[in-house]
Amino acid sequence: MVFGLNGKVLRVNLSNRNMSVETPEEDFYRRYFGGRAMVAYYLLRELEPRIDPLGPENKLVFVSGIVTGAPVPGSGRNTIGAKSPLTEAFGDADVGGFWGAEFKRTGYDAVIVEGKAKRPVYLWIHDDEAEIRDASHLWGKATAESQALICRELDDRWIRVAQIGPAGERLVRYACIVCDLHHFAGRSGMGAVMGSKNLKAIAVRGHKKLNIADPKRLGAIAKWLSSNYFELVGELADLGTAQVLSGLNALGGLPTRNFLGGTFEGAEKISGEAMKESILIDRRGCYACPIRCKRVVRVEGPYAMDPRYGGPEYETIAALGSNCGIADLKAIAKGNELCAAYGLDSISTGNAIAFAMECFEKGLLTDKETGGVELRFGNGGAMVRMVKMIGERSGIGDLLAEGVRKAAEVIGGCASECAMHVKGQEIPMHEPRLKHGLAVGYAVSPTGADHCLNMHDTLFAKQGRPLERIKALGILKPLPPDDLSPAKIRLLIYGTDERTLFSCLGLCYFLPYEYSQLVDIVQSVTGWNSTTWELLKVTERGVNMARVFNIREGLTVQDDELPRRFFAPLTSGTEGIAKAIRRESFAKAKVTYYKMMGWDAKTGTPMPEKLQELGIGWVVAELRPFSNDVV
Amino acid sequence: MVFGLNGKVLRVNLSNRNMSVETPEEDFYRRYFGGRAMVAYYLLRELEPRIDPLGPENKLVFVSGIVTGAPVPGSGRNTIGAKSPLTEAFGDADVGGFWGAEFKRTGYDAVIVEGKAKRPVYLWIHDDEAEIRDASHLWGKATAESQALICRELDDRWIRVAQIGPAGERLVRYACIVCDLHHFAGRSGMGAVMGSKNLKAIAVRGHKKLNIADPKRLGAIAKWLSSNYFELVGELADLGTAQVLSGLNALGGLPTRNFLGGTFEGAEKISGEAMKESILIDRRGCYACPIRCKRVVRVEGPYAMDPRYGGPEYETIAALGSNCGIADLKAIAKGNELCAAYGLDSISTGNAIAFAMECFEKGLLTDKETGGVELRFGNGGAMVRMVKMIGERSGIGDLLAEGVRKAAEVIGGCASECAMHVKGQEIPMHEPRLKHGLAVGYAVSPTGADHCLNMHDTLFAKQGRPLERIKALGILKPLPPDDLSPAKIRLLIYGTDERTLFSCLGLCYFLPYEYSQLVDIVQSVTGWNSTTWELLKVTERGVNMARVFNIREGLTVQDDELPRRFFAPLTSGTEGIAKAIRRESFAKAKVTYYKMMGWDAKTGTPMPEKLQELGIGWVVAELRPFSNDVV
Repeated sequence: MVFGLNGKVLRVNLSNRNMSVETPEEDFYRRYFGGRAMVAYYLLRELEPRIDPLGPENKLVFVSGIVTGAPVPGSGRNTIGAKSPLTEAFGDADVGGFWGAEFKRTGYDAVIVEGKAKRPVYLWIHDDEAEIRDASHLWGKATAESQALICRELDDRWIRVAQIGPAGERLVRYACIVCDLHHFAGRSGMGAVMGSKNLKAIAVRGHKKLNIADPKRLGAIAKWLSSNYFELVGELADLGTAQVLSGLNALGGLPTRNFLGGTFEGAEKISGEAMKESILIDRRGCYACPIRCKRVVRVEGPYAMDPRYGGPEYETIAALGSNCGIADLKAIAKGNELCAAYGLDSISTGNAIAFAMECFEKGLLTDKETGGVELRFGNGGAMVRMVKMIGERSGIGDLLAEGVRKAAEVIGGCASECAMHVKGQEIPMHEPRLKHGLAVGYAVSPTGADHCLNMHDTLFAKQGRPLERIKALGILKPLPPDDLSPAKIRLLIYGTDERTLFSCLGLCYFLPYEYSQLVDIVQSVTGWNSTTWELLKVTERGVNMARVFNIREGLTVQDDELPRRFFAPLTSGTEGIAKAIRRESFAKAKVTYYKMMGWDAKTGTPMPEKLQELGIGWVVAELRPFSNDVV
Repeated sequence: MVFGLNGKVLRVNLSNRNMSVETPEEDFYRRYFGGRAMVAYYLLRELEPRIDPLGPENKLVFVSGIVTGAPVPGSGRNTIGAKSPLTEAFGDADVGGFWGAEFKRTGYDAVIVEGKAKRPVYLWIHDDEAEIRDASHLWGKATAESQALICRELDDRWIRVAQIGPAGERLVRYACIVCDLHHFAGRSGMGAVMGSKNLKAIAVRGHKKLNIADPKRLGAIAKWLSSNYFELVGELADLGTAQVLSGLNALGGLPTRNFLGGTFEGAEKISGEAMKESILIDRRGCYACPIRCKRVVRVEGPYAMDPRYGGPEYETIAALGSNCGIADLKAIAKGNELCAAYGLDSISTGNAIAFAMECFEKGLLTDKETGGVELRFGNGGAMVRMVKMIGERSGIGDLLAEGVRKAAEVIGGCASECAMHVKGQEIPMHEPRLKHGLAVGYAVSPTGADHCLNMHDTLFAKQGRPLERIKALGILKPLPPDDLSPAKIRLLIYGTDERTLFSCLGLCYFLPYEYSQLVDIVQSVTGWNSTTWELLKVTERGVNMARVFNIREGLTVQDDELPRRFFAPLTSGTEGIAKAIRRESFAKAKVTYYKMMGWDAKTGTPMPEKLQELGIGWVVAELRPFSNDVV
């Protein structure tokens, strides 16, 4: 009896409509139990190097974590991975909601989608059965329509749908995958990969009961969380992820006007508090989670919203709001709705628009290119219009749909100065000048700048749970935010491993579990006699395999770079503690990072012995043709 | 309120009779909570490089572990460290019994002994009080006499005494420290260091109650162990550590005749079973432990024993028995008694005698040197006489008291071929040809060949608890005994960390706790919200600091060597699975070990980034004058 998982992986080839089922050994799950670890395993094993990410030879992998779907709060997450069309490198994105848990109830732990369908299709997985169904009638539809149509034609309102919108169909390079309309596997352009395969959706419905090794013990943890979450993360429940906005602004680290500034004069109009007092009408949550940090909003008037979509997260508020100089929460909510409807990553979308606004203000783009839109910072109407144009690849939207790196190349001049990205992926709404450890984290992240799996320094850890959690790994004292000493790099590495662990488990990082509870959860679900050590080694495997994937793709240490802007002080609103990153310290810190990771100091390549220590000696062979000096 | 520890370290300078008390921060304990980690901290911080280990500038450090003395089975252990006179390198030795727990009840966590007393003294520590007392009347006394005298003059039969015998007084380089007569901090020659300071004993008696953070939770673990130990380690209780003798012999890995053979024709006469059926009259245990694996024996006749001393452990039976070709359990018991009375490490003593026997048989030593003793393999009487002569440094005993490395140099010729040691410390009774991972473990151990902190491969892990325990770190499958692949080196590293962890905790390695229970124990005792990760990082700190200590002493990778004998097949009794170690594989495996440890491949020096990752960046400065190439 294997606990906590189904022991089955579905493989679907859309080119020849072949479907097969694989049954990995239990040890496979124990070594790569979900998230980045399992995604990296499949991508490294199965993709040929240097393929076209939008070609049929790319594979799109949906994996659940070992805890996904277990009856414990926070277990509603899963990961989707593929080679990224945005970065041409390792790509993955996590997502919460209900799809992952429902998928696991179908009897599968993962789906590997290969090839390309001749015509639009969707996949319908229900209780061990899988069907490839026609999706011609869904193609071009906004996500709310297509979800409604799928549920209607399959006649089950409890079906969960992971799908792309028109943006994914049109291969917008940062198209996302939308789950249950309210949850987004946002980053790395996974929606474009799905679109390139003519796969509109994966609809799931299952009735399998997960075997839990020790339901009673798991129940005790669930009960603890339910009884204590409000005390521990009550503000998250109350204000949603936007709870951090005011604080970041006060510290001078709220991304403003394409990262030119760190404080936004309109911050209090778009804060979590402001949302609560204005457009918020309810809260929503994810599978088995009592926290309910998601927002339900109502907007009437010129920015009237479709009520089937949800309200914006912090990342979206900052990306479409402060970073575009926009202090109008209704416009932001509308922009957010359009991102959900078109299936666009709101972080990259906001960045792309802010980039275009800066270019417009600097004269690098004119009325001519924008089709008459006054693309200035603060213009909420223009922002909303741009989201739509990107989703439809119309006008300038077609260029911005390529991501800021490529768009800047086309625009030329000093547009590249305005393109805020790492490895081609746009910067999330955490200002690295406020948290210098994050600067290195952004630079070395295999997916490009990422807000999910990098630690956010210890700046905000003083009051709360995170410091206690990291303390349990032996990091006993917080470090100054602008520190870039080896101690900070150690914190970065441990913190990144910690976040990656939540992802690999299929558990939400916001849940205030201590490590001992995480181990308890894994032991209760799987029956494995596991430890924090074993769990963190799974994530280390993921981080290393993703790195190797990128090396195989030709990426080098030159790609572990930050936009130049971060090495200069903020040009407005500098009253906070955000400081320019010192180039020398940053360069030195990266080398420290490589060496501390067990990577070659010059090439950033994982040493064979590090891979062997992680129990993934097979990965060494993947490096052979690419770095003669270290193997 | 600090839990689990007293927060006080006693510093005693015997030269000027100054005593002072230090109160380290709680974080100090959390980073270096005992055992090798705490010893290495003090030696690295406080000793000048390249001092005379028998000079007043050496320091002798007695440390308890964070769990020592807590009411949980196995917590009776502590560690004693100093620069070793046997290896001229890092030295430490663990010991069980009752001394450590009693010491902790005096109100101190550690004692640092500095300088050298003008005349023999002993230290009397009782409930925060410490006195330096005259020991002239104890000097020269066997351990049982001197213990009786101390208890009588202090008028308390519950006093616990850690002391040296005449061997330590005479600076036998492998003199041990004897605790409660039955327990031995055997290795590294800590008794000689104590003797060099004119310190006969440390007597302790305390009434402080240790503050336990969560006594109820700790009680539950204690209860579990007490209810389950017999099922889990019943054979250990029944047969003592000698339980392994028959099995090792059957596999061809019982050290026989100075490691020339691996099977001993007299094995069944000296096995745990044989002892049980002959001289065994009772069992004894350590503080708070129900297992009682120690032997109580009675021997009458020519080898009549003083009943105040205990019976032999496996290591002693093999060292004085099979490795000297002796199948007479009574002679072995007598030899063991003399080791306890003189304060001699029985492993090194047995090795020294076996070395001398081989030299005698090969004509390198003759009647003349041995004073007429027929020093042949199998001669029980000669062995017993030799133990005495070593303890008294009389005749050839004076030469053998220097350890086999130095003795071989004096004898010359091919005597060095017979000197079985690593870094000058004699080989324990685990044949590395039977467990090739152990071969590398012996070679790289900072104290020279060591049986406590190196893993014993997975050979015997199949039936029992150890494999389950190591599985919890992610090593899911056992490996063949003669494997020396990177996977085996990973096992060696994790296994060594595991053993070192028990030592640092002050907990006995024989206790069948799982990692989750170890974490439970630490959390219950200290209130720290700890993890397996944090605990194993403490031990990794210890291993790295000890390595740095040795580099500072001038040791190089050349010192990570094994006796040549192990690279050739066993010359007798080769029916088992023991196989010659292949020199090339061994050399390669060592490099793998260095790199996997985060050490420089050529110099075996810990990389600064590894030390920084361990949170001991201060150690980098210790390396500076010694290895320009890596800092």
